[in-house]
Amino acid sequence: MTKLNSTPEGTITVADYLFARLGQLGIQSVFGVPGDYNLTLLDFVEPSGLHWVGTCNELNAAYAADGYARINGLGALVTTFGVGELSAINGIAGAYAEKAPVIHIVGTPSRALQEARTLVHHTFADGEYGRFAAMHTPVTVAQANLIDPRTAAEQIDWALQQAMVHSRPVYIQVPVDMVDVTIAASNLETKKVQLPATPTPKHEASVLTTILERIYSAKRPMIFVDGESRALDILSQVDELVKTTRWPTWTSTSGKGLVNEQLDNVHGFYAAHYGSEQAKAYFDAADLVIVLGPHYSNTNTQGFTTIPKQEISISFSGTTVQIGKDVYRGFCIQQFVTQLLESLDRTRIPKIDGPPKPKVDLSHIKKTDIIKQDDFYRFVNPIFSEGDIVATETGTASYGGRNFMLPPNTRMFSSITWLSIGYMLPACLGAALAQQETNKYKPSNGVGNSKGRLFLFIGDGSLQMTVQEISTIIREKLDVTIFIINNAGYTIERAIHGRKQAYNDIAPWRHLEALSFFGGSEEDVAKNNFSARTYGELEEVLRSERIQQGKGLRIVEVHMDREDCQGLLRTLMDEQVVQDANQ
Amino acid sequence: MTKLNSTPEGTITVADYLFARLGQLGIQSVFGVPGDYNLTLLDFVEPSGLHWVGTCNELNAAYAADGYARINGLGALVTTFGVGELSAINGIAGAYAEKAPVIHIVGTPSRALQEARTLVHHTFADGEYGRFAAMHTPVTVAQANLIDPRTAAEQIDWALQQAMVHSRPVYIQVPVDMVDVTIAASNLETKKVQLPATPTPKHEASVLTTILERIYSAKRPMIFVDGESRALDILSQVDELVKTTRWPTWTSTSGKGLVNEQLDNVHGFYAAHYGSEQAKAYFDAADLVIVLGPHYSNTNTQGFTTIPKQEISISFSGTTVQIGKDVYRGFCIQQFVTQLLESLDRTRIPKIDGPPKPKVDLSHIKKTDIIKQDDFYRFVNPIFSEGDIVATETGTASYGGRNFMLPPNTRMFSSITWLSIGYMLPACLGAALAQQETNKYKPSNGVGNSKGRLFLFIGDGSLQMTVQEISTIIREKLDVTIFIINNAGYTIERAIHGRKQAYNDIAPWRHLEALSFFGGSEEDVAKNNFSARTYGELEEVLRSERIQQGKGLRIVEVHMDREDCQGLLRTLMDEQVVQDANQ
Repeated sequence: MTKLNSTPEGTITVADYLFARLGQLGIQSVFGVPGDYNLTLLDFVEPSGLHWVGTCNELNAAYAADGYARINGLGALVTTFGVGELSAINGIAGAYAEKAPVIHIVGTPSRALQEARTLVHHTFADGEYGRFAAMHTPVTVAQANLIDPRTAAEQIDWALQQAMVHSRPVYIQVPVDMVDVTIAASNLETKKVQLPATPTPKHEASVLTTILERIYSAKRPMIFVDGESRALDILSQVDELVKTTRWPTWTSTSGKGLVNEQLDNVHGFYAAHYGSEQAKAYFDAADLVIVLGPHYSNTNTQGFTTIPKQEISISFSGTTVQIGKDVYRGFCIQQFVTQLLESLDRTRIPKIDGPPKPKVDLSHIKKTDIIKQDDFYRFVNPIFSEGDIVATETGTASYGGRNFMLPPNTRMFSSITWLSIGYMLPACLGAALAQQETNKYKPSNGVGNSKGRLFLFIGDGSLQMTVQEISTIIREKLDVTIFIINNAGYTIERAIHGRKQAYNDIAPWRHLEALSFFGGSEEDVAKNNFSARTYGELEEVLRSERIQQGKGLRIVEVHMDREDCQGLLRTLMDEQVVQDANQ
Repeated sequence: MTKLNSTPEGTITVADYLFARLGQLGIQSVFGVPGDYNLTLLDFVEPSGLHWVGTCNELNAAYAADGYARINGLGALVTTFGVGELSAINGIAGAYAEKAPVIHIVGTPSRALQEARTLVHHTFADGEYGRFAAMHTPVTVAQANLIDPRTAAEQIDWALQQAMVHSRPVYIQVPVDMVDVTIAASNLETKKVQLPATPTPKHEASVLTTILERIYSAKRPMIFVDGESRALDILSQVDELVKTTRWPTWTSTSGKGLVNEQLDNVHGFYAAHYGSEQAKAYFDAADLVIVLGPHYSNTNTQGFTTIPKQEISISFSGTTVQIGKDVYRGFCIQQFVTQLLESLDRTRIPKIDGPPKPKVDLSHIKKTDIIKQDDFYRFVNPIFSEGDIVATETGTASYGGRNFMLPPNTRMFSSITWLSIGYMLPACLGAALAQQETNKYKPSNGVGNSKGRLFLFIGDGSLQMTVQEISTIIREKLDVTIFIINNAGYTIERAIHGRKQAYNDIAPWRHLEALSFFGGSEEDVAKNNFSARTYGELEEVLRSERIQQGKGLRIVEVHMDREDCQGLLRTLMDEQVVQDANQ
């Protein structure tokens, strides 16, 4: 780390301290937009060894930091007072809802201006400076306003720790005149910011014994991997549990991609109403369900139809272990699940034959068939390989993407409860950058794309929300392939309500001009654009060297019918078709 | 109005009532984005006779509604619970800061779901439904949650009235299951929503007398038109006062374009430090300043240097008349200023010779000169004619636009205190639509563009924030010309700080491909794109039939140097150049 301002021995500026801490915690890139109240703060970013990623607007910066956090473990953005931070707030709310630890740093007017209640710009010109911080309290787990050099370091450390503990966003205000104020540097070397130690919970031993006994005595057990396993940071433990027990394993929608779907006992995501009947039969008659990281929103549980019965469940969530109705608090789940695995007597684990895994048969597809949601996702599936990130934006893409069966060490990435359309494109900017930096999803066999690739599936409606971030993906030279599903509007909304309503239409764009408009190189513009209407055309695209091994941004426009959908959305759409016919 | 649902005689659905009220108050178009919790509400928009304008995202909808409100008098948008409304909130905050009455209507989950604290999507999956309304309280002057059919009509009326009274945004939640609930329709016909009557303030007569005496006895009087005159709805009174007195008149930055700058006594905007010295001399020695709609933020007062001295000022703002230090409350300013004009004895108004109006001399410009901020705005000026709206986005464009001298009945449109970059493009969508619908800025002589034209000046950095709304401008067939100032980044920020810093750079785009990418017709793509680097080229562009008389969207890319600026920004930039040279 190069310090921007030289300070006396043993001291450091507030900005250098803050950015040094981010670096220590594994953040390599910071997102954001410059603004008058954060410019001097931004002077410190690159000298701190961090990479500055200017996004086109602040909401996109928040989405990008969220995507970065979900892959990297922690993400950060810098905005400016009022206008910048409020533009970002929906992205911060999403990070709160879905547990992404995002550090929202806001450059604010100087303490002198604030104390004098000066009527500056980016305020309501009424001398009130506290509103925007207040608006952030419902969407962040900690707020710090660095107005005092005596406490700034501790405030920063505390806020960062809260983000880690809760896996949720925090909010740090840095007044312009605090940026280069000198504080003690000692904490940086002597005191790590880390998760606090968990005291042994009162019931730990008995809970462990109970769980082990339940495991040994199970007749029809199963494992249910839900999405908050990511925030609990237990993915390697989940992997070991699934491999060790070989028990039938399903995931929730948001749990998908957090466990190796190539294993014989892993069945992919569970749908009560339109999945395999054998799976449903097993699920319904199970006598033990080990639930990891439950998140029971309507959308993650398909209308509350996939929640395992409480009386047969052992659930690990937050700081809580729940056995049937009994809730035991105060656990570090990561520690406890590790302990459970260590205590597990492998010889006593019941051997279970689960239902057969669903088979994929695409032999009915002819090359001249037009592409439909029903088979599209399984058809594309072979393109994925170890180390990839597969992202699906809310809409028909996220519904369809549930049909992927992913290679090991691949990360599935989508939103499940906040479902803010427009999220996924900037989030992929963040995710791809984290992927490239950390090499986290490097294939286990070392073969293939060691830097990983990211495939994004996104509808044309969602694309319009945040399309400009394509330019940042280009500028950052990230290896991203975007499948744009062009179905002339918000098809997911058409399925829910208003099948023929004009409000579900969007303006038609020439998608294959995006690469050029947003500044792609002439070579990329000439060679990285693809489109397909039929499976034959799609096959050609998927076989292309540029898609398979290419670099940079590639765009594939896939045309589908405006009312085409599958799964639950198909049911909803069909209901409307019947209603309309009866009118 | 066609009612969507037939209801018993004398009744109406909540949605029909709400939209009928908007129509009664002069709203013809409503902006927004569909989402699961507002779809059924949207079913009622077009049948109510309102035009639905789907924007690409919710922040842009808020900006568009704000722009629409500033031209039309009132604007509205519809978003969905959580994700939609929080995306829009920065736009709502801007409307609050700058007094644009925007009705923010949010479709929310059904009362049953809310009461049961169901863990639905677009929430934090914790059963809490009140957060987003709470987050809107600091940025709206009234909040209504329509959960009770007995009070829904009154709540709507009250919220709309509050928006009118304060000229600021309000927030109305409509649960999905309240949309088609039947309520009494009687208010719609019997009870207008309007500004409440103002009781005669205690001191009215004496205040009036005092002001008249001050006017008659003034030796060196002047008029200062500030931006809140728009929200006070006194523009015609201001016009009359300026014409009647013929006193030297200046405007603040945000007052610019609210008064006819072609009048001999109107000097345009006042700058203490880099304007005409004769103007400053007059301003400094004035013995009476009539101040209309003051708004004293740092940016509107050029760092507090243009605020008239209190002891010689008579100020009209909010519900207050201030004479020197004495504040008199409870006035309806519109009513009172009208009364003042009626009481004014024309024969006793002192005749004043003000300083000479600044002259524009562009004879030094050669055709081969590259375009610079210094002269660009005056050079473009002749293109404007009566009935136009001239919009300048925050940045070098808003600073430069202060140099325009506008024809009568033209509207200057910019942001002054909230200054959220990205605002102006979607705001122009709203403004141009309102312009087209209301024909408000129709030239007084009936000649020229009777539908009005809108000219937007915007920097390339700001453009990136909200660029997708170009597609909505195209779809709505609005007559808009956009001058994109391509100076490779955030030049206004470079002037303030970080002249050479990479964080003030942006990704380079191919701006002249926007029309095509965003779905323009082939003819428009072929003929409506222009660019200029020199004054000769710019002259050609300005002479073009397509620019002068054309329809639809036209784009002019104007290239300028990355550090080129003028006015106050020039001073700031030069200071950095000197600093850097000395390092």
